[in-house]
Amino acid sequence: MPKADHLTWHHGHVSRDDRNALLGQRGATLWFTGMSGSGKSTVAVALEQHLHQQGRLCYRLDGDNIRHGLCSNLGFSPEDRDENIRRIGEVARLFADAGCITLCSFVSPYRDARDKVRAIHTDADLPFLEIFVDCPIEVLEQRDPKGLYQKARAGEITNMTGLSDEHPFEAPTSPDLHLRTDAFTVEQSVAELIKVLKDNSIV
Amino acid sequence: MPKADHLTWHHGHVSRDDRNALLGQRGATLWFTGMSGSGKSTVAVALEQHLHQQGRLCYRLDGDNIRHGLCSNLGFSPEDRDENIRRIGEVARLFADAGCITLCSFVSPYRDARDKVRAIHTDADLPFLEIFVDCPIEVLEQRDPKGLYQKARAGEITNMTGLSDEHPFEAPTSPDLHLRTDAFTVEQSVAELIKVLKDNSIV
Repeated sequence: MPKADHLTWHHGHVSRDDRNALLGQRGATLWFTGMSGSGKSTVAVALEQHLHQQGRLCYRLDGDNIRHGLCSNLGFSPEDRDENIRRIGEVARLFADAGCITLCSFVSPYRDARDKVRAIHTDADLPFLEIFVDCPIEVLEQRDPKGLYQKARAGEITNMTGLSDEHPFEAPTSPDLHLRTDAFTVEQSVAELIKVLKDNSIV
Repeated sequence: MPKADHLTWHHGHVSRDDRNALLGQRGATLWFTGMSGSGKSTVAVALEQHLHQQGRLCYRLDGDNIRHGLCSNLGFSPEDRDENIRRIGEVARLFADAGCITLCSFVSPYRDARDKVRAIHTDADLPFLEIFVDCPIEVLEQRDPKGLYQKARAGEITNMTGLSDEHPFEAPTSPDLHLRTDAFTVEQSVAELIKVLKDNSIV
């Protein structure tokens, strides 16, 4: 429900193409979605490091740094989760417009919310790549780096994504890349990501 | 009222210093505050163009592009105006952290809201420069590029900043730069801004 639609977009003298030319890359958003412990941040951090070493400007947005700032006034109700993803999507659009390769790591379990973030980018003619970071639940429960699955099984956490019909993880139906992190090493995952970035003329 | 303070900031392997080194500049936020028609966007656009020609990465945030996206669900009540400025401040912090010279043009009439944006940056050890874009009301009413002052005087707009005690513009008490746009050309303003950027080791 936009309340400010009498405004017009302000076109500056420096264009998106100018910034992309300056940076020697194409600003884009990579959206890493997957269950807790699937390896979203691990893969994004490794990709960031690799790209930076190649002289690419990247920036990571993740639940931790966003929840402390932009979304610190949001909780974990379904409405707040949707607003959280919407705001991140809008910020990612601005970063991609600035020329940055923007790596977003969020469980983001709802297909509809992710599709809206894609639409924000498509409407702005910006590349958006959905990366499904996938791992079988048995492996996730073995890894369990934060002990969350154990707590959920013990009933100490009741809203853990992917363990009940009430809190489903809605897997992407047509992701731009499907990474099976139980089958791939981090290095292999990064190689797959670089391939997708090249195929999309981002690097 | 933060609701998510059990989270921890995620430190990635690529640091802010790494990004600044890559870009050859220091990420920072320049906050242009001033009444409607004072020349905030004009000066910011000119600075952006100048910096880009020098190979600097800049990005502008302004009321128009923010109101269409990140803050499209906010109106113009005092609470919504504060939340608008807060969100922009948080986004500017992320951009500055990414290494970008971030130019924010907003009337932002309330001192308290601007001080909070400064605090967001200070807490994150990021440069924040408040630029007071100043012009006497008589000149603003002569310029009146959007016809807003005329409408306000005719009673067609009732909440115009700076025309009544109810909607004051709280001028900065100690801005990092005070630009009198009735006395300076755009080129002179840009030269003053470049000097401040150099003094603060941003370029």
